[in-house]
Amino acid sequence: MTEKIALTPKTHTTPPAKFSHGVRKGNILQVAGQVGFLPAEEGRPPTPAGPTLREQTLQTLANVRAILEEGGASWEDVMMLRVYLTDVDHFAEMNAIYNAYFENLVEVPAARTTVYVGLPAGLLIEIDALAVLG
Amino acid sequence: MTEKIALTPKTHTTPPAKFSHGVRKGNILQVAGQVGFLPAEEGRPPTPAGPTLREQTLQTLANVRAILEEGGASWEDVMMLRVYLTDVDHFAEMNAIYNAYFENLVEVPAARTTVYVGLPAGLLIEIDALAVLG
Amino acid sequence: MTEKIALTPKTHTTPPAKFSHGVRKGNILQVAGQVGFLPAEEGRPPTPAGPTLREQTLQTLANVRAILEEGGASWEDVMMLRVYLTDVDHFAEMNAIYNAYFENLVEVPAARTTVYVGLPAGLLIEIDALAVLG
Repeated sequence: MTEKIALTPKTHTTPPAKFSHGVRKGNILQVAGQVGFLPAEEGRPPTPAGPTLREQTLQTLANVRAILEEGGASWEDVMMLRVYLTDVDHFAEMNAIYNAYFENLVEVPAARTTVYVGLPAGLLIEIDALAVLG
Repeated sequence: MTEKIALTPKTHTTPPAKFSHGVRKGNILQVAGQVGFLPAEEGRPPTPAGPTLREQTLQTLANVRAILEEGGASWEDVMMLRVYLTDVDHFAEMNAIYNAYFENLVEVPAARTTVYVGLPAGLLIEIDALAVLG
Repeated sequence: MTEKIALTPKTHTTPPAKFSHGVRKGNILQVAGQVGFLPAEEGRPPTPAGPTLREQTLQTLANVRAILEEGGASWEDVMMLRVYLTDVDHFAEMNAIYNAYFENLVEVPAARTTVYVGLPAGLLIEIDALAVLG
């Protein structure tokens, strides 16, 4: 019997609903959809890193990474990233930010699917991730 | 060689297309996108549980669960739920129904991504799930 | 330590961004979102197989399959296909093409979720896939 573990890094609040920011069971790690909220501060409501796609993309990637690390994983272990954008015209800029962010990644980068959906007002990007630990 | 098994609970009709409601292979179980159709009855076309988000959310969760159980899994084994809504304004109500539904879940709840997409007319919610058995 | 391998079939160009068309690690294989681009030719920009849903669906399935095969997998190993359409009215036609394509599949077909999202101009369908090798 392999135990399922909730992944709640210090930068994240306990989720307001009955879900986890991430879970790990055996060698499988799943990161829930992350958005560009700043690290949690007590008494402050969830606050986006800023209004721009750049600010939100970098913060979202940092939030995904915090959960991976909480579960003992790193970008190298990620198999799939799902990127949800709200505007097709954001693709080129997101891609440039993404490429720069992963520029020094030595290992094989993850597969990725980018689709265009709705998100709550003010949020421009959401990312979730599936990792398989070595 | 591990066998792949189709999961078709009694509450579900055989899919009209060449896909399965769920599949299990080894310890991985994938539930296909479920919507709020009532348990199948011969001669009746697929019928939503009702027009409201509450009715459809509870029926959708029941449909996901039936497939999990058909594969020998339970909510405790679920790593990720993807919730597709059609309206950002439905989030709070869905979340309240979801939290009440999982209130007595002892184990770590699954990670979750909620996005806003289109669905066929009359359908307000769709959910798919990935589980890893213990 | 299991190695992660990038899957880049000859029909595909090296991705323009820091992601892989597919990755395999151990017995898990993930195919990134594929669209209906024709096999890559040097000096030609990515070109859809045609303007119709039929042309794009068949090409997209061929592109998913090429990545599966590059990783030593086949349709039989696929657990989940995610189909992204841009128009609810395309469902019936996509389903008919899909069913004909998989008509001779002996094994259990994959689970599937179909949702309606935005895609870049001219693209009508995108598909990604998760496979578990035997």
